[in-house]
Amino acid sequence: MNFCSHCGSRVGMRVPDGDHLPRHVCPACGTIHYENPKLVAGCVPEHDGRILLCRRAIEPRRGFWTIPAGFMENGETLQQAAARECWEEALARVEVGSLCAIVHVMHARQVHVMFRAVLAEPSYGIGVESLEVRLYDEAKIPWPEIAFPSVVFALGRFLKDRAEGTAGLHFTTIDAARPAR
Amino acid sequence: MNFCSHCGSRVGMRVPDGDHLPRHVCPACGTIHYENPKLVAGCVPEHDGRILLCRRAIEPRRGFWTIPAGFMENGETLQQAAARECWEEALARVEVGSLCAIVHVMHARQVHVMFRAVLAEPSYGIGVESLEVRLYDEAKIPWPEIAFPSVVFALGRFLKDRAEGTAGLHFTTIDAARPAR
Repeated sequence: MNFCSHCGSRVGMRVPDGDHLPRHVCPACGTIHYENPKLVAGCVPEHDGRILLCRRAIEPRRGFWTIPAGFMENGETLQQAAARECWEEALARVEVGSLCAIVHVMHARQVHVMFRAVLAEPSYGIGVESLEVRLYDEAKIPWPEIAFPSVVFALGRFLKDRAEGTAGLHFTTIDAARPAR
Repeated sequence: MNFCSHCGSRVGMRVPDGDHLPRHVCPACGTIHYENPKLVAGCVPEHDGRILLCRRAIEPRRGFWTIPAGFMENGETLQQAAARECWEEALARVEVGSLCAIVHVMHARQVHVMFRAVLAEPSYGIGVESLEVRLYDEAKIPWPEIAFPSVVFALGRFLKDRAEGTAGLHFTTIDAARPAR
């Protein structure tokens, strides 16, 4: 951030009065520009015991597989965002269920919120952000080709819970800037 | 948003290629400025069965009571954010427990994420953003003076679960622009 989005002046970094962290502050109009983590919403879409995965047509991780997920928009709930992403990426209508995983992706300044879901009808296709969309048996999931660690985590916890007949909420923190624990 | 925070040019609204919503786009450097919901993290801090509440020293809703909560920062988890807010507002160290409530606050473009918590030590005080901090018996909670509907929801679900010996995760959506349901 170099310029004030309100008045166009060049911004500097300083700790505002009553605050405890340096922020981008406009010396001309006084606007404080806060930067906060962004929400990514997604779901693990299930149909007849199989999992719907999408092969990404866009960067980052083009060509790798993911569950449908993307940035939450203003004006929607997390569940609506998860369902929308499923429609955009896999042309699939889902009923969004319980919350499965929350992943703090520190290096990306994102919080990934992943739900359980079932296809509302046995229909899906290839959305514009996907190269390929397939229903995978658990044993056939291409783990080495999964796009993101947060998806590995959500998918893994989803399957473990399913095998045990439970449906928990699981938290983890991923930080590419630190060694894996 | 009037100006590009990257190059300082005046921005316009248009739907970027491959997107489906109008965004602030810079005609000079091409930067797309996305606006997304912000995360607020908080907790219901319990001690000996009583609930720690803070009377707000700042707007909005100065003079009204709240559980400790505030905007999540980059570089922290939701649980760390909830604990930090509890320290800043009530000078109380807490152990953050299970997730109690997620509230979509549509008109504010915020998602409020509220945990259960217990005081790690029987000590608290008045943080700079508070006028007063008190441990309340359930029967004495000043419901008409609670600052925000999301706090009423989280506190209500916390107490109902506690009475029933459960600890669920509860979702709701609040939109001041629409009539209450």
